[in-house]
Amino acid sequence: MSMTSTNDDVVALARRLLACPSVTPATGEVFAALEAMLVPRGFTVDRFTVGEAPDGPVENLLAWRTTGAGPHFAFAGHLDVVPPGAGWTSDPFAPEIRGDLLYGRGAVDMKGSIAAFVAALDALPDDLPGTISLIITGDEEGPATYGTMALMDRMQARDLRPNLCLVGEPTSAKRLGDVVKIGRRGSVNMWIRVTGSQGHVAYPHLADNPIPKLVRILTAIEAEVLDEGTDWFQPSNIEITDLEVGNVAHNVIPAAATARISIRFNDQHSGAALIERIKGIAAVEGGSVEAKISGESFLTAPGAFSDLVSGAIRDVTGVETELSTTGGTSDARFLSRICPVVEFGLNNATMHKLDEAVAVQDLRDLVRIYALVVERALG
Amino acid sequence: MSMTSTNDDVVALARRLLACPSVTPATGEVFAALEAMLVPRGFTVDRFTVGEAPDGPVENLLAWRTTGAGPHFAFAGHLDVVPPGAGWTSDPFAPEIRGDLLYGRGAVDMKGSIAAFVAALDALPDDLPGTISLIITGDEEGPATYGTMALMDRMQARDLRPNLCLVGEPTSAKRLGDVVKIGRRGSVNMWIRVTGSQGHVAYPHLADNPIPKLVRILTAIEAEVLDEGTDWFQPSNIEITDLEVGNVAHNVIPAAATARISIRFNDQHSGAALIERIKGIAAVEGGSVEAKISGESFLTAPGAFSDLVSGAIRDVTGVETELSTTGGTSDARFLSRICPVVEFGLNNATMHKLDEAVAVQDLRDLVRIYALVVERALG
Ligand SMILES: [Zn+2]
Ligand SMILES: [Zn+2]
Repeated sequence: MSMTSTNDDVVALARRLLACPSVTPATGEVFAALEAMLVPRGFTVDRFTVGEAPDGPVENLLAWRTTGAGPHFAFAGHLDVVPPGAGWTSDPFAPEIRGDLLYGRGAVDMKGSIAAFVAALDALPDDLPGTISLIITGDEEGPATYGTMALMDRMQARDLRPNLCLVGEPTSAKRLGDVVKIGRRGSVNMWIRVTGSQGHVAYPHLADNPIPKLVRILTAIEAEVLDEGTDWFQPSNIEITDLEVGNVAHNVIPAAATARISIRFNDQHSGAALIERIKGIAAVEGGSVEAKISGESFLTAPGAFSDLVSGAIRDVTGVETELSTTGGTSDARFLSRICPVVEFGLNNATMHKLDEAVAVQDLRDLVRIYALVVERALG
Repeated sequence: MSMTSTNDDVVALARRLLACPSVTPATGEVFAALEAMLVPRGFTVDRFTVGEAPDGPVENLLAWRTTGAGPHFAFAGHLDVVPPGAGWTSDPFAPEIRGDLLYGRGAVDMKGSIAAFVAALDALPDDLPGTISLIITGDEEGPATYGTMALMDRMQARDLRPNLCLVGEPTSAKRLGDVVKIGRRGSVNMWIRVTGSQGHVAYPHLADNPIPKLVRILTAIEAEVLDEGTDWFQPSNIEITDLEVGNVAHNVIPAAATARISIRFNDQHSGAALIERIKGIAAVEGGSVEAKISGESFLTAPGAFSDLVSGAIRDVTGVETELSTTGGTSDARFLSRICPVVEFGLNNATMHKLDEAVAVQDLRDLVRIYALVVERALG
């Protein structure tokens, strides 16, 4: 393949992004830094801010470059980072190389992979037809209400329709490329409330204790088997995450009791169906349920796209990739509505931790992998 | 029988006590008022204050009068009252007669019955041999750590040993004398704690959720049948009164979960044995138990003393008395260690409520009943 000259080293690009203290929600400076990388590379850049308190406003960046007729490959990610916390060896927003590692908040999650994608652009053949886009939000680590979903609206309004999307989240576990995510479980939280009638413990017949009812509901929920897992998903799981009565009076039977549960579910379920199921269990004891779906599950069935990504990984690193659906939710849950989505990025060992760091060699390998993926996707 | 002249009307005596705002713990003025009633009636009065924060200091009053050799009859009670709360028709500490009722905080619980006992002294035969004592605390409605128990120590130090004790708590339900308490259930609170290992709901295999374990413990506790009740006691009862996890993070499996239970138990159990029993249940799931016994149960088996009290009630009012062991704990649980104890006093309909009030006729009848009880007990 014909390589263009590398304008910037991936480490220099990553340093520029890491130097911006973009604790979620990210704004301004870090977007300007990315814009300054994309415009010289021929991208149209659309930066916009949407939403109101409490989940907004949120800054986002949509960029695209079309070179003749061809497929549309999208790279998605986020410029916001989780708060660094106290106790770093060096300033979390003053990127520093020590030994083989580049340190800084966001090194792996995920400014490092954004820098790698920008550097990969420089490694693409000049004559590659099609559209390449970047879908970059400043609010992935926060509520995510006005982030990737707003970017998807923006793309639709501009008639930009990706055929494939790679999300650059840090999916690698022990070695770069050992894990690629082809799906995520969905997530729903529910609050189960039982009301009774307050009274004195000495006169229980005059009261109606809601706690034994809640205990029976929770016992029934614990006995639920949602599924046994699928070829691509581990079994769906229910966790009881909180109990709350708040009764300080030792001699008083309380009037209400609440439990919170969190369900991580695979593609055998929808959030709405699970809510109905739990409502049915709670109703037996007169309990009510409020729920919030954080995200539905998604699966990009193993096939051409995952083969393309794992093939590029193998060709660059020799690593055999595991296709996985484990872990928490990511913005891929939104993007999967418009096209096949695969997540692949750096090693996640230090993400969200003190002294977050990326191996410089991983950055360089990731540039080569991303370039191969885009080339083969558009080729 | 030969009656001494009535020095004071029972209503006047009750008014004098009710005019002192003796919200628990009671101090000073209200004790001085009672002392001023007892000294002219030949009593030795020992007022003393004991204890330190947080449950003290507490003021108490011990009074006794011996007229020749004979049995020792004790009357026990308290001069403290629960806070009046807002919304009274008249000043809760400015006693006022409206219609047939005398209003004031403590009218039935239990300054009214203390006044009735003082008035009853004036109705006793002059030549009645034996000892009469009053065991009056300023802290029955509070922690009761330095109240009646301290008075019992004081009596022991003075070699005062009652043969019978009447506690003047408001036991009557619909008509004066319809209920006399011959026992009370015991009370114990326990805190059941299960610790696990915190983690993320997406990785439950890396965590150890304590809540399902606590739910299983509570299910087992709910299935416990402590007893079926006895001739004199209703069944012992377990209530779960609180649940606490305090986990605000929706995606986190918590590290610990706590439940509080309250057991009211009859004379088939001891607090200590119940604690061991619950510890055994909790241990199956690795739970630990902390406990606080508020009081052991007691029973003054129906017999001579209860017959004496119900006979006096019948002779004065014609009411047939029910011997009961229901309700919360009272200081009778302490006094029952030294002699047979029966509780009998005014109508409890308005105790601890707004516009607490006593029927003037009930006060006058109670004077005659108390006088008959003392006369027959010493006679
Ligand atoms: Zn991320
Ligand atoms: Zn009382």
